[in-house]
Amino acid sequence: MKKRKSAALAMAAVMSLSTLAGGALTIQAAPADMVNVPKYVFLLIGDGMSYPQIESTNYYLNALENGTSMGNSDEGTILTKTDDALGFINFPVAGSAQTYDSTSFCPDSASTATSVSTGHKTYSGTINMDETGSVSYETISEKLKEQKGYKIGIISSVNLNHATPAAFYAHQVKRSSYYEIAEELVASDFDFFAGGGLLKPTGAEEDQTDIYELAQEAGYTVIFTQEEAAQVTAETGKVLIIDEHLADSSAMEYELDRTDDMWALTDYVEKGIECLYDESSNGFFMMVEGGKIDWACHANDAASTMADTKAFSDAVDAAVEFYNAHPDETLIIVTGDHETGGMTIGYAGTNYDTFLQNLDNQKISFQKYDDEYVSAYKENGTDFETVLKDIEELFGLVTEESAGTAAEDSVAEDSADEHPTGVTSGKLVMTEYELSKLQAAYEKTMTVVPEDEETELTQQEYELYGSYEPLSVTITHILNNKSGISFTSYSHTGLPVAVFALGCGEEVFEGYYDNTDIYFRLADLTGIE
Amino acid sequence: MKKRKSAALAMAAVMSLSTLAGGALTIQAAPADMVNVPKYVFLLIGDGMSYPQIESTNYYLNALENGTSMGNSDEGTILTKTDDALGFINFPVAGSAQTYDSTSFCPDSASTATSVSTGHKTYSGTINMDETGSVSYETISEKLKEQKGYKIGIISSVNLNHATPAAFYAHQVKRSSYYEIAEELVASDFDFFAGGGLLKPTGAEEDQTDIYELAQEAGYTVIFTQEEAAQVTAETGKVLIIDEHLADSSAMEYELDRTDDMWALTDYVEKGIECLYDESSNGFFMMVEGGKIDWACHANDAASTMADTKAFSDAVDAAVEFYNAHPDETLIIVTGDHETGGMTIGYAGTNYDTFLQNLDNQKISFQKYDDEYVSAYKENGTDFETVLKDIEELFGLVTEESAGTAAEDSVAEDSADEHPTGVTSGKLVMTEYELSKLQAAYEKTMTVVPEDEETELTQQEYELYGSYEPLSVTITHILNNKSGISFTSYSHTGLPVAVFALGCGEEVFEGYYDNTDIYFRLADLTGIE
Repeated sequence: MKKRKSAALAMAAVMSLSTLAGGALTIQAAPADMVNVPKYVFLLIGDGMSYPQIESTNYYLNALENGTSMGNSDEGTILTKTDDALGFINFPVAGSAQTYDSTSFCPDSASTATSVSTGHKTYSGTINMDETGSVSYETISEKLKEQKGYKIGIISSVNLNHATPAAFYAHQVKRSSYYEIAEELVASDFDFFAGGGLLKPTGAEEDQTDIYELAQEAGYTVIFTQEEAAQVTAETGKVLIIDEHLADSSAMEYELDRTDDMWALTDYVEKGIECLYDESSNGFFMMVEGGKIDWACHANDAASTMADTKAFSDAVDAAVEFYNAHPDETLIIVTGDHETGGMTIGYAGTNYDTFLQNLDNQKISFQKYDDEYVSAYKENGTDFETVLKDIEELFGLVTEESAGTAAEDSVAEDSADEHPTGVTSGKLVMTEYELSKLQAAYEKTMTVVPEDEETELTQQEYELYGSYEPLSVTITHILNNKSGISFTSYSHTGLPVAVFALGCGEEVFEGYYDNTDIYFRLADLTGIE
Repeated sequence: MKKRKSAALAMAAVMSLSTLAGGALTIQAAPADMVNVPKYVFLLIGDGMSYPQIESTNYYLNALENGTSMGNSDEGTILTKTDDALGFINFPVAGSAQTYDSTSFCPDSASTATSVSTGHKTYSGTINMDETGSVSYETISEKLKEQKGYKIGIISSVNLNHATPAAFYAHQVKRSSYYEIAEELVASDFDFFAGGGLLKPTGAEEDQTDIYELAQEAGYTVIFTQEEAAQVTAETGKVLIIDEHLADSSAMEYELDRTDDMWALTDYVEKGIECLYDESSNGFFMMVEGGKIDWACHANDAASTMADTKAFSDAVDAAVEFYNAHPDETLIIVTGDHETGGMTIGYAGTNYDTFLQNLDNQKISFQKYDDEYVSAYKENGTDFETVLKDIEELFGLVTEESAGTAAEDSVAEDSADEHPTGVTSGKLVMTEYELSKLQAAYEKTMTVVPEDEETELTQQEYELYGSYEPLSVTITHILNNKSGISFTSYSHTGLPVAVFALGCGEEVFEGYYDNTDIYFRLADLTGIE
């Protein structure tokens, strides 16, 4: 495999190195003639996915595979992490990108995707427009289509007019202009859209022409069932596939809630490849977003975060399979847009120990729990004892009393190895302190607020619950902490993101750079202006 | 600059890539003949330094330079981050290393430095011995000295027999065997040691021969003053320099507490280069540890963390200056051993905003505050009002009352831009909630525990204070949070660390790999077995 930098990139390296001490450092430009142009480009973005999401998922899957002896300090046991459970971790190139935008060190998906898609910084919440709201930026996907004749595919597990996918075809001052964004989707003439349903399909006031009608008028085959989706081929022409099993906010299901009969993100990637690949064509560019990693992290739901990170990794594997068949012409870039939640592998109460396999006790996402259980609690005024039974079943958390009466349960059996802070290894008996927090959250959740009153949270409540259902977020906090995982925020953070690259031109993505450089390097490789 | 992988490394890449989906991926080995052997190797380790420490320091220094408009969402202001404030961020190669050890996903400095120094995983707390405690591993520095005749320098801002420096010359089952480690230091015959004082210099029972005497007997010039240190040259021969201004636990001062007359880490690097460099020699290997980044993160002291990260970066700059004079023969590797504290750029209470410049209000480290103020509070039974005056002066945190009576203070002037959660921009008035936490911590700190009683912390207290002085850690928590920074742990976490490389052989450090690979790649480059 050739390992050379293009002249343009070497120049960029010279420039960035000028800030080094001494300042006299120069790097020789290597000849550019050996760089192939990647004909098939995959850009896979884990929304909210940075090092903590990647490594915690990797360690968690290893802990599950290797048993409960991993990740704690039992004497005589050797932690035996084996293979990395996420394939893209082993890509030959892994750099890092800074994510700050024109608003904040903790940027949002609109501005960061704008940076990746166009090479420009802008305000949080803005998609491919400058800070004055008057200048529009053309995107990498538009340029590849227009200048190079690439086919374009856009896939997301959340809404196809959500910020990240939108940043590859739309130009709007506000990411919340969902209908206008969807109009741009229809006008894009891109070849393949698949994933979550469009938000506000008839406009914010529900008085506009249905966007799906407009898509059909513009020549798109619009599909809402898996059966029809399965029939789609390259011959179908322009296609807009909406997932059949939409969940919260018309996004695809959390991976934790997905059943085997439902299409996963990776199914849409495979279908996209089938539609976009044509040996005689000019090539394709496919953007794939794992959007619910971010949503799970916002809610501090570690188990859902890891399940969706794995689902995203599976989608990457589908791209790698294509790469294996076309190694000289394919480039795969895997990155995140920003970190979400301030997730850490480690928690004050567990010191140097983690018990990641405890997360396997969680059976459903916080969202499904909200939708299917908490709303019923509210309607029925369900008592705390009954709620506790659901929590035991769905999250594996038990009270001392419950553990005592169920002493033969495997969950409660391992009573040794008591942790100084009351956290125990291998069983999930809540301490008095944790139970008191859970009860307070239950009471907050069950307090009916009159419709004409706004809920005012105290500072402490805001830190504890954010804007989430107090009961649900407290459950995941307790389970996270008992697993040795913690979060510091319900928003995005300023951690750099990882950038993995495999294939034709991979080497230009090494280093520690700005997220706008992902655009510049990709533009340089593909020869667009 | 040539960009080729050695055959051995390419083979390693083939092996690690075998876990990828498809499994059919292979990488061609490039000829190895173009790789120079690095004659001068710098390995600089920021203890506890991973992406959060690096990027928060970088953003903080940018925020300070560019004024208070940065890092928050004031309309009409464009965040204008300019150059990276830490030079090593711009190194051409930046990979990542996983840090788990044979005990835990949240490893310690002994095991991680063992991995970097020998290519072996071992238990937390063990230095260059296997998990049975019976097999000893030879270190990269010992091998470079014996097999290649390199001169060896070991520098640390903490004790020279602390885990990280020890891992380059000692072999002990327990990192706490300080005297035995120091004996190995003396026996190492390494050329240059400089930094913090040796712990337990006369043994755990204080009944052994003074280790400094033994060092002199072994031919070391042992130096305790800056004046003498300044006189040291390559002609001095083997040297052991102990910093003149030792602080907590005989380590060097926190950078925040260092005065201009005290040597910084970078001064010892420059002195080390002066002693180790000799054009006609076989080369040198220098390990430099920024050890107090870790200590500050354990205590969740963000301002001290950033000051020590900058001091570490300055030490890297001294190595870069040497590189600029010897670019073809010098390799600089900058990494961390693990992350400490679960530090995040972002906090639940400030959402997408950060106010990093607020950290500039902190004038001294938590440690100096403990030593010079809190101990006096305890002795004198100082009342809370008086303590609050110190907190205002030293950390910039004021009460509403104090802000009201001191309305002309610049700190209290900017009363606009109230944050929904009670956090304000540009001034550091504590909310009622914060003040109540501070008062509870003050009372905990002032509670005299009889000497024969152990302090028992409740789970909540443990989460709030760890093993730190409740008052001090609560002050830094409040200041951190008002700056948009948070921590989740008082221990190490499982985040991967960054690996930056510049110079001869830099390209082999790209990718996402195991910390043991740092050893293997360096051994491969330098040709040791």
